[in-house]
Amino acid sequence: MTEYARRPAELATFEEFHNLPIERKINYWTRDGRPFHVVNSRQFTRGILEDLIDLTNKIRRIAKAKTGVEFLHSLLPHKRAMLFFKQPSTRTFLSFVSACDFLGISWAEVRDSGVSSEAKGETEDDSVRVFSSFFDVMIMRHPDSSSAERVAYIFDRIGRPIPVINGGAGPDEHPTQALLDVYTLDRSFERQGGIEGKKICFVGDCKRGRTVRSLARLLALYEGVELFFCAPKSLQVLPDVTDYLHTKNVKFTLLSELEPHLGEMDAFYMTRIQDEWDAKDRGNVNTPVDIGPYIFRERFLPMIKFGAIIMHPLPKRNEIEPAVDNDRRAMYWRQVRNGMWARSALLAYIFQRDDEIKRYFNKNT
Amino acid sequence: MTEYARRPAELATFEEFHNLPIERKINYWTRDGRPFHVVNSRQFTRGILEDLIDLTNKIRRIAKAKTGVEFLHSLLPHKRAMLFFKQPSTRTFLSFVSACDFLGISWAEVRDSGVSSEAKGETEDDSVRVFSSFFDVMIMRHPDSSSAERVAYIFDRIGRPIPVINGGAGPDEHPTQALLDVYTLDRSFERQGGIEGKKICFVGDCKRGRTVRSLARLLALYEGVELFFCAPKSLQVLPDVTDYLHTKNVKFTLLSELEPHLGEMDAFYMTRIQDEWDAKDRGNVNTPVDIGPYIFRERFLPMIKFGAIIMHPLPKRNEIEPAVDNDRRAMYWRQVRNGMWARSALLAYIFQRDDEIKRYFNKNT
Amino acid sequence: MTEYARRPAELATFEEFHNLPIERKINYWTRDGRPFHVVNSRQFTRGILEDLIDLTNKIRRIAKAKTGVEFLHSLLPHKRAMLFFKQPSTRTFLSFVSACDFLGISWAEVRDSGVSSEAKGETEDDSVRVFSSFFDVMIMRHPDSSSAERVAYIFDRIGRPIPVINGGAGPDEHPTQALLDVYTLDRSFERQGGIEGKKICFVGDCKRGRTVRSLARLLALYEGVELFFCAPKSLQVLPDVTDYLHTKNVKFTLLSELEPHLGEMDAFYMTRIQDEWDAKDRGNVNTPVDIGPYIFRERFLPMIKFGAIIMHPLPKRNEIEPAVDNDRRAMYWRQVRNGMWARSALLAYIFQRDDEIKRYFNKNT
Repeated sequence: MTEYARRPAELATFEEFHNLPIERKINYWTRDGRPFHVVNSRQFTRGILEDLIDLTNKIRRIAKAKTGVEFLHSLLPHKRAMLFFKQPSTRTFLSFVSACDFLGISWAEVRDSGVSSEAKGETEDDSVRVFSSFFDVMIMRHPDSSSAERVAYIFDRIGRPIPVINGGAGPDEHPTQALLDVYTLDRSFERQGGIEGKKICFVGDCKRGRTVRSLARLLALYEGVELFFCAPKSLQVLPDVTDYLHTKNVKFTLLSELEPHLGEMDAFYMTRIQDEWDAKDRGNVNTPVDIGPYIFRERFLPMIKFGAIIMHPLPKRNEIEPAVDNDRRAMYWRQVRNGMWARSALLAYIFQRDDEIKRYFNKNT
Repeated sequence: MTEYARRPAELATFEEFHNLPIERKINYWTRDGRPFHVVNSRQFTRGILEDLIDLTNKIRRIAKAKTGVEFLHSLLPHKRAMLFFKQPSTRTFLSFVSACDFLGISWAEVRDSGVSSEAKGETEDDSVRVFSSFFDVMIMRHPDSSSAERVAYIFDRIGRPIPVINGGAGPDEHPTQALLDVYTLDRSFERQGGIEGKKICFVGDCKRGRTVRSLARLLALYEGVELFFCAPKSLQVLPDVTDYLHTKNVKFTLLSELEPHLGEMDAFYMTRIQDEWDAKDRGNVNTPVDIGPYIFRERFLPMIKFGAIIMHPLPKRNEIEPAVDNDRRAMYWRQVRNGMWARSALLAYIFQRDDEIKRYFNKNT
Repeated sequence: MTEYARRPAELATFEEFHNLPIERKINYWTRDGRPFHVVNSRQFTRGILEDLIDLTNKIRRIAKAKTGVEFLHSLLPHKRAMLFFKQPSTRTFLSFVSACDFLGISWAEVRDSGVSSEAKGETEDDSVRVFSSFFDVMIMRHPDSSSAERVAYIFDRIGRPIPVINGGAGPDEHPTQALLDVYTLDRSFERQGGIEGKKICFVGDCKRGRTVRSLARLLALYEGVELFFCAPKSLQVLPDVTDYLHTKNVKFTLLSELEPHLGEMDAFYMTRIQDEWDAKDRGNVNTPVDIGPYIFRERFLPMIKFGAIIMHPLPKRNEIEPAVDNDRRAMYWRQVRNGMWARSALLAYIFQRDDEIKRYFNKNT
């Protein structure tokens, strides 16, 4: 394989680029040592995660005061974001919208490139190129796994230097969800020595939940973390994840029952059975599966550690009993707000406003 | 019945709360002597109405100058509003959007909690709780009568202290419409001694028009007001309103013809036959009714008082002849703009920016 | 015909007004010597075009710096725009939205006057009147040719002095597209002596492309310009355009082949076969037509002048080979951004902020 220059697209077709090893692609998505295009959760190294966690904490605390919010608004009023959501997602949409608002970024939404009747016959590549003309960053959600990668490739090829942020692409990648999950764990364990050495148990659909795949990889960056995957056989985690964990020497265990292990865990990461991928999916799972053993029940609350937390990427259905919602260890509502702060931090980081935020924080808090 | 604490929800189910007498509920929707949640038009006491009318006048006048608009923008730039509109309503939507813009509040819209395909199976309570994470106030319109009350109850129960504003709920309540109507009357009668002692005639559908019910109650707060309900028999005002007026010693008269009484009235509040509630409604009205006698006709213009006004909550159909539109006494277009100012005032009041507005007003006008 | 006063509507029905000669109508759309309502591309005189081109250049250059963007934001924060798009058009929508954002104008979108279920039975004139209450300018796109004219007429009649901007009306008029096209030509020929004397060739659907009709008329304002219309017989330019060019003594030629003339032209204005108008159209064209000879092919690139440009209003389909896209003379992507700047300039001009922009420009660049 030949060497690729800064703009790989001048040297390769998208298919060639797409087939490069992930490390090589990450290299192209990086500028000045930080993510420019945010396509894949593997772009978050331990150092970048720590930068982002620190920045998220600072933004969150600055925003508590009106003057702080006004400072944040003054950071990026000259930037405009396009939210290109081909797949509906109210909560991810609102989270990014909130992040933009906090930084003074103005935004507009395009729900569908086929919105315009005039556009019949235009290629999606052309549509995206036109839309990008009006904006300084594109945040996209799309049913196709490689969509964000493709748009990043197009922008690089045409020399339009605006970042792309993957807000969820197909069944595979949702890097900002992984980021907010790590942030939630870090914040929750702030007074318990951080994420290092914690026992984290994924419960439910470990096979298809994209958050499970991404988060498991990121947790491999933290020393001594021990992972558990508690799922029915047909929804147990796939070899790509376990192989990766083996390579990284991360201790992990597959479980088929939750209840006997409640007292061991520091965090429960509950997931939903993702029936919506069933039709088109790699695994031919014949749901219904009996998810009874993978429901977090009210009666479990006294059985888990005092400092343990219960997470869920939401929306949830019946995999957590409603009475659990108001326990102080139920972190899923807080995850939602954390997502807003983490996405604010990511945008500020991409646009290199972190130093300014740190200076303000040191002076004003 | 036991005493309820600040957060009634900790002590009661929603059904229990919902069945409390309205005065008790109003107490819970109130903070620091002013509405926090704005659920029901009965929350507007005479004192609150006067505060809001005064504030509306000041905001309207401040907004005439560019510097005034800039001052208003500086009031609440750290607040974000969610417009949760499960029922479409372009004009109420635009009115609230304008009010938010005027005060620097950024906003986003959620048309439907079921927007996201992922959300299948999530309860609406959960959706609302998630959405609220991103915002500082929720403005909602919903087909169910008790929707705003329910959301306010949820927020109080979960300890998420953001206000809910009812932007129209089912056939019953639309408190901000009632507010703008009172404001319009007050402003129109500014040089005629105010609302006190005026004769106000509701025309058309007095039974189902929610504005009629709310406004009639509020007008009971003004001394000497005399009300007339001019409607076909099958659409005449219901006993709940007349009983209330009796209790409050408000003089009122039921009319079946408009024309003979044109010269007596100070205000005509025209309404539309609300066929859209027919299917599900309490009254089994077999429309069509002959609404001919309840149309305001061009030839009436010379027959009404010089200082009388003609109101309509809009949209109108044929209940006012188009030639009336441009008469200086046709107030319905101005009601629209008044609504924008009154909603601005309400938001500023809830977020306690009224003192700041008064100071600016006294210094700059 | 009688004389019409400033508010023609008081003296005429819309039909009477609509049938006035265009020069008379333009007079009513003009305030202080500049367009107030922007309805028709013929409103752009040579002087106005030069003002707008100059202003566009200045805004574009000011926006390169963050402080410049902040200056632009400070120009019109007290104004609010309504984007009334009854016909979907993502790119025109985003272009206007961007223009508003740049000038600090807040905006809201109404996709359809029939959005609200309550509005059943309301006339569109009433809807527009209500919507206008909330805004300071209405930007509209509508399937009916005379829609913008009608709304401008309504606003004048009711004494609501807010400008209307036609963002595309039916098959006929799209004045801001014509404006950005002239701007693109002017900017491209900046170092080649300007538009004067250039040879400009329209290619493809010269009959129905509304941009062709409008742009051809505007180019008649530039001395020595020579126009070419290269189209299949059934899609050749109509007499209304050629008659107009005759009147103005503009030299023009009809061509049926593109390739033999490639070397002569300074600009190629490619267009798309507009099948979408077929059903309802004035010309009963039986497409498919063989458009092969009207495709701009990669192999043409070495055959055209070094300084020639290739334009397209977008979206395009197959009328330009994709390999042409990245040639430095392919201006269609830049047209998109030019549209955003030109629309910013138009809004600033209507609201008389041009002097302020010039002062800032002279001091800061």
